Amino acid sequence: MMKLWRSRNLSSQTLLSVKGGDVRDALWSHAFESRAAISTSIHDSAAKGNSTARVIAPYTVYKGKAAFSVTPLLPTFSKIDSGNLKLDRRGAMMLTFWPAVGERKYDWEKRQRFALSPTEVGSLISMGAHDVSEFFHDPSMLSSNAGQVSKKLYIKALDGGNGYMISLTVSNNLLKSNERFNVPITTAEFAVLKTACSFALPHIIGWDWLTNRSHKGIEGSSSKVNPKLLDLEWDR
Amino acid sequence: MMKLWRSRNLSSQTLLSVKGGDVRDALWSHAFESRAAISTSIHDSAAKGNSTARVIAPYTVYKGKAAFSVTPLLPTFSKIDSGNLKLDRRGAMMLTFWPAVGERKYDWEKRQRFALSPTEVGSLISMGAHDVSEFFHDPSMLSSNAGQVSKKLYIKALDGGNGYMISLTVSNNLLKSNERFNVPITTAEFAVLKTACSFALPHIIGWDWLTNRSHKGIEGSSSKVNPKLLDLEWDR
Amino acid sequence: MMKLWRSRNLSSQTLLSVKGGDVRDALWSHAFESRAAISTSIHDSAAKGNSTARVIAPYTVYKGKAAFSVTPLLPTFSKIDSGNLKLDRRGAMMLTFWPAVGERKYDWEKRQRFALSPTEVGSLISMGAHDVSEFFHDPSMLSSNAGQVSKKLYIKALDGGNGYMISLTVSNNLLKSNERFNVPITTAEFAVLKTACSFALPHIIGWDWLTNRSHKGIEGSSSKVNPKLLDLEWDR
Amino acid sequence: MMKLWRSRNLSSQTLLSVKGGDVRDALWSHAFESRAAISTSIHDSAAKGNSTARVIAPYTVYKGKAAFSVTPLLPTFSKIDSGNLKLDRRGAMMLTFWPAVGERKYDWEKRQRFALSPTEVGSLISMGAHDVSEFFHDPSMLSSNAGQVSKKLYIKALDGGNGYMISLTVSNNLLKSNERFNVPITTAEFAVLKTACSFALPHIIGWDWLTNRSHKGIEGSSSKVNPKLLDLEWDR
Repeated sequence: MMKLWRSRNLSSQTLLSVKGGDVRDALWSHAFESRAAISTSIHDSAAKGNSTARVIAPYTVYKGKAAFSVTPLLPTFSKIDSGNLKLDRRGAMMLTFWPAVGERKYDWEKRQRFALSPTEVGSLISMGAHDVSEFFHDPSMLSSNAGQVSKKLYIKALDGGNGYMISLTVSNNLLKSNERFNVPITTAEFAVLKTACSFALPHIIGWDWLTNRSHKGIEGSSSKVNPKLLDLEWDR
Repeated sequence: MMKLWRSRNLSSQTLLSVKGGDVRDALWSHAFESRAAISTSIHDSAAKGNSTARVIAPYTVYKGKAAFSVTPLLPTFSKIDSGNLKLDRRGAMMLTFWPAVGERKYDWEKRQRFALSPTEVGSLISMGAHDVSEFFHDPSMLSSNAGQVSKKLYIKALDGGNGYMISLTVSNNLLKSNERFNVPITTAEFAVLKTACSFALPHIIGWDWLTNRSHKGIEGSSSKVNPKLLDLEWDR
Repeated sequence: MMKLWRSRNLSSQTLLSVKGGDVRDALWSHAFESRAAISTSIHDSAAKGNSTARVIAPYTVYKGKAAFSVTPLLPTFSKIDSGNLKLDRRGAMMLTFWPAVGERKYDWEKRQRFALSPTEVGSLISMGAHDVSEFFHDPSMLSSNAGQVSKKLYIKALDGGNGYMISLTVSNNLLKSNERFNVPITTAEFAVLKTACSFALPHIIGWDWLTNRSHKGIEGSSSKVNPKLLDLEWDR
Repeated sequence: MMKLWRSRNLSSQTLLSVKGGDVRDALWSHAFESRAAISTSIHDSAAKGNSTARVIAPYTVYKGKAAFSVTPLLPTFSKIDSGNLKLDRRGAMMLTFWPAVGERKYDWEKRQRFALSPTEVGSLISMGAHDVSEFFHDPSMLSSNAGQVSKKLYIKALDGGNGYMISLTVSNNLLKSNERFNVPITTAEFAVLKTACSFALPHIIGWDWLTNRSHKGIEGSSSKVNPKLLDLEWDR
């Protein structure tokens, strides 16, 4: 059986049947972006410098059986004929899990990743104190290899209302392997996660040009508008 | 009958009678800004470059019968005699709908647009899980052609509390045409919409100069203030 | 009787007796900043330009009996001996009211202003759907002229839960005058007000250096820290 | 008895047993950053200038028995071999308390500090109107001097629901000293605190590179991505 859904919020009571969109969304994770993007390029804005540096600053939580970190991945853009930049691939919140192998020792080599799409981030930040969210990624979805390798992220409010359990399961039917990471996080840690993800969301959907414009850009927008271009809402 | 209201929140129990303001607000959409603004100009802040590029990055949701996207439109400014910049036309959140014409195929040529004013954005971001919002735009409002062509955007919480239905109806009495787009969106997608619109709202009302100031600007504000200019609150 | 309180939230059930702080806060409005600050200076960040421009973009609501606008006033800084910048005077959200004098005609000459302090902004943005907030400003507070001229801003949720009434009263006992502005605003308009004020709050308390740092600034912070400076939390 | 917990939210009903992570988190405050960081360095982004200035702008509340201020401390970064910047030490919200010594007189020399970690900030900003939060810092934790000197921050909603009491206790068993600061804050002041801390949180965890990128940086990210780097989610 091929599983297609991606972000089933179990606190919901019905499921919309909108397969066209779901498939397109599901394919998104398959062709996801790269190591290079994890610490996305920042160019020096000073006129005389040409240095480029990346910033590596995940928010990390260390718990008894595993560690868990989250960091934003920015979208990529392509230059189109007009010279403008068009969103090429949406960004994500990249979650990384790696297991504890002793007291306060963690094995980074055994890490597993899960890239939350913007809509999955929307699911996370709208979770209430009693909700459950489940996200399912299959890199071979819609191909003949569907279901052989898959990842499931499961976020569940703890009974006492004082935190959440975040679980990642990575299944590989070919290797008969099944890895699972469980990280209990407190209400306070979840508040950091929500606040940081809400902050990052406009950036991973590519809207950060709104805040990264220089004043010169604001001034530039004051040029006269071609009257023929008015009333866009009523044009095709 | 000429319809004047613009953002009737049906969860409200009374309607304020403030026609002066409503009309002014309604006229806003008539003279709305242009294609050029959709990917508003960003000038390179580097000293040596003069390049200008626009960023095209709508947040898009593909569903069974139609696709739906949203992107911010920045306001425009005019330079006034003092050399300062005065808000010329407020920005908007531009919604675009286009129909599905087959499995995972959508016809961009048949798109219709709806420009949410800042106040209409305020209505959207304050919607609860059981609310309804309705916005009505008539490009000929107050003229003799009023009511001939109109657009209605309708956002309604789904019964199960697990999402919203967004509907756009475009009526043209002259052509006897009536187009309708229905896009069901999940709670997660609505959370993205709310977060992204809340993020964009200060920008579309023209307040982004607060975040786009350089440090030099902050420092510049430390110059001595003319004592005669103090106590503004108590002046006229 | 001299009135000292400034932001009495009537939904509160007790009043804290912390007069020292209240007085200090009350004095804040007396010495408030100037016309110059209303459209605070923005310097061009481009290397070759030296132009300075202000941005004038209030959020305005036009209603039957009066219009109402709000715009952020940034704080001012003084350069201290170390070359650093120290907050000199906190910013505010400046509210302006002016009366209607006919259908869709408003008299700007009769405007009155009220400068919300950061804490008063905190009161506004935390108002629930059934709350009341009242702010009282007296420019002569603690002097022999106390009570002669005063301003009161009153924000009250409407009974139906579908909006708020914002009222400004300006009393002058010497002139026996009493001006009053009433502006009913919808839930949607209040949502814009809350979102815009929440966005502006960190800026008016002087924290916008957090977002206005250049990347060079981030990089600069990576310089080695003097070990003697560590453990600040445990120093005096 | 050695106390290890750091942010016990008393409204929670169970305590997770995740000592590995807690210890690591607890050690964080011991090696905290320095005076220098309190007004973190901002470099001028203009091409011709090389000036550096710090901005000093705490949010301060003056009450009857003590004053209380809060200011963000940015994280520090180290340049690593690749030329990238790696988060070195997380930032914090630095709280400072100092006692009243007369009417409207406060003694800055007797100040005590408490540095809220990002997770403790998460606890503060998620507090409801009836919650209690308690944070415990011991600079000698896990050493033989554990328990000799310690600080406890206690935030408790007031009974009437109209504010919070913030208390800092500094105990020194060697000197047999015990200092305590009590600052009652109103709902409005707490709203400022929450809004300002939510705003600062992404910055103190080191994510502000998202907003401080220049447009050139956005454009730079449009370069072709090495196909081998794709599918990061599925790599190790």
